[in-house]
Amino acid sequence: MVSMLHKLDQRFHAVTCCPMELLDAVLKRRMVRNFSERPLEPRIVMDILNCATHAPSAGFTQGWEFIVISDPHRRQQFWEKTTTAEWRTTSRRSEGLRRAPVLILPLTNPDIYFERYSLPDKAASGLGKDNPNKQEAWPVPYWWTDLAFAVMLMLIRATDLGVACAFMGIFRGEKEVLKELGVPQGYRPIGVVALGYPQSPDPPSPSLRRGRRSVDEIVHYEGWNR
Amino acid sequence: MVSMLHKLDQRFHAVTCCPMELLDAVLKRRMVRNFSERPLEPRIVMDILNCATHAPSAGFTQGWEFIVISDPHRRQQFWEKTTTAEWRTTSRRSEGLRRAPVLILPLTNPDIYFERYSLPDKAASGLGKDNPNKQEAWPVPYWWTDLAFAVMLMLIRATDLGVACAFMGIFRGEKEVLKELGVPQGYRPIGVVALGYPQSPDPPSPSLRRGRRSVDEIVHYEGWNR
Repeated sequence: MVSMLHKLDQRFHAVTCCPMELLDAVLKRRMVRNFSERPLEPRIVMDILNCATHAPSAGFTQGWEFIVISDPHRRQQFWEKTTTAEWRTTSRRSEGLRRAPVLILPLTNPDIYFERYSLPDKAASGLGKDNPNKQEAWPVPYWWTDLAFAVMLMLIRATDLGVACAFMGIFRGEKEVLKELGVPQGYRPIGVVALGYPQSPDPPSPSLRRGRRSVDEIVHYEGWNR
Repeated sequence: MVSMLHKLDQRFHAVTCCPMELLDAVLKRRMVRNFSERPLEPRIVMDILNCATHAPSAGFTQGWEFIVISDPHRRQQFWEKTTTAEWRTTSRRSEGLRRAPVLILPLTNPDIYFERYSLPDKAASGLGKDNPNKQEAWPVPYWWTDLAFAVMLMLIRATDLGVACAFMGIFRGEKEVLKELGVPQGYRPIGVVALGYPQSPDPPSPSLRRGRRSVDEIVHYEGWNR
């Protein structure tokens, strides 16, 4: 099908790269862990981030911020704070991952959601800043899930553009990283998105040996196990 | 570009419906709130759920389950438990939303993640079931964000197939709904995905008047505000 919409949207800069049908991008997406030295064009980074802004969000809060780290020294600092020296020297993944030319920290802050749900059109929800139990009043931490929507769009848009990507949790050093980057109190990262170009070899994650759960396994009709 | 991958994948049943380029689906996706009476073909529902299974997940845990509700009586029960009588009789959205022929509850359970991270290849993480503070040890509730990845893929695949969709939080009656559906202890819904076909009129959500935050607003280079 001829693409019409995004040709009218000048904010997408990278549409000349032979875009895929949606399902191809979904099926082709994988977590790349061996990046080449090739730098990533800034217009590609902007395109991927622009795609992220089209994620849905509760009350259209859009409580997301993105820090792009491409400076080699800052990237090195990120890895030194978030990983152990042992991992950096012994993991077979370490060098390939650390070569990724662009790291993006997607951040969110529940306070932005509490503010949004304090506005007149949402105040009746009881989910605003005046509720002393506001954190527990939200049935789901929609600040995290909205940000995940945005990250999912980044990963498949990257794939669509022939860009390698990985998403990883930050399990250590988060506070030091946020301080170093001057992130205001309250904002936290969902993890890190690494972007760049792939190189061989890049063996699949051992976790994939678990196998993908099929539709038959995960779907229930009209009720659990019915 | 000619789609190759999914033509080889027989689990995708609905690929004849003129699939879109990825960016078209991302830009065209919206929360539809006025559904027609037209039923949704089961093969379309399966295709959308199959797409969801291609979301990434921490440790490939895939801790997701999906309950499909299409039975009119069960759908009515869902709305009666999750909304107020006042909303059902006075909201301009109520009738259009309640016409949606298919409701899907995507569910997750942190215990599945604790089990996964107790296995030999992840035990060193300290995120497994034997950690008395396991819930707090996870920096981000990845059970929710993985499920959000899956929901995001459902929403854009629906759009890709010309199917109307909406995602909404469940802010009341969750416990009664889960009990009625026989959902085991520990599983909770991220919200509900409504699927079907659209009809007019379907005015945009008033929240959209807030405006979409542009890339310039949300992106920081090399550090916050730098």
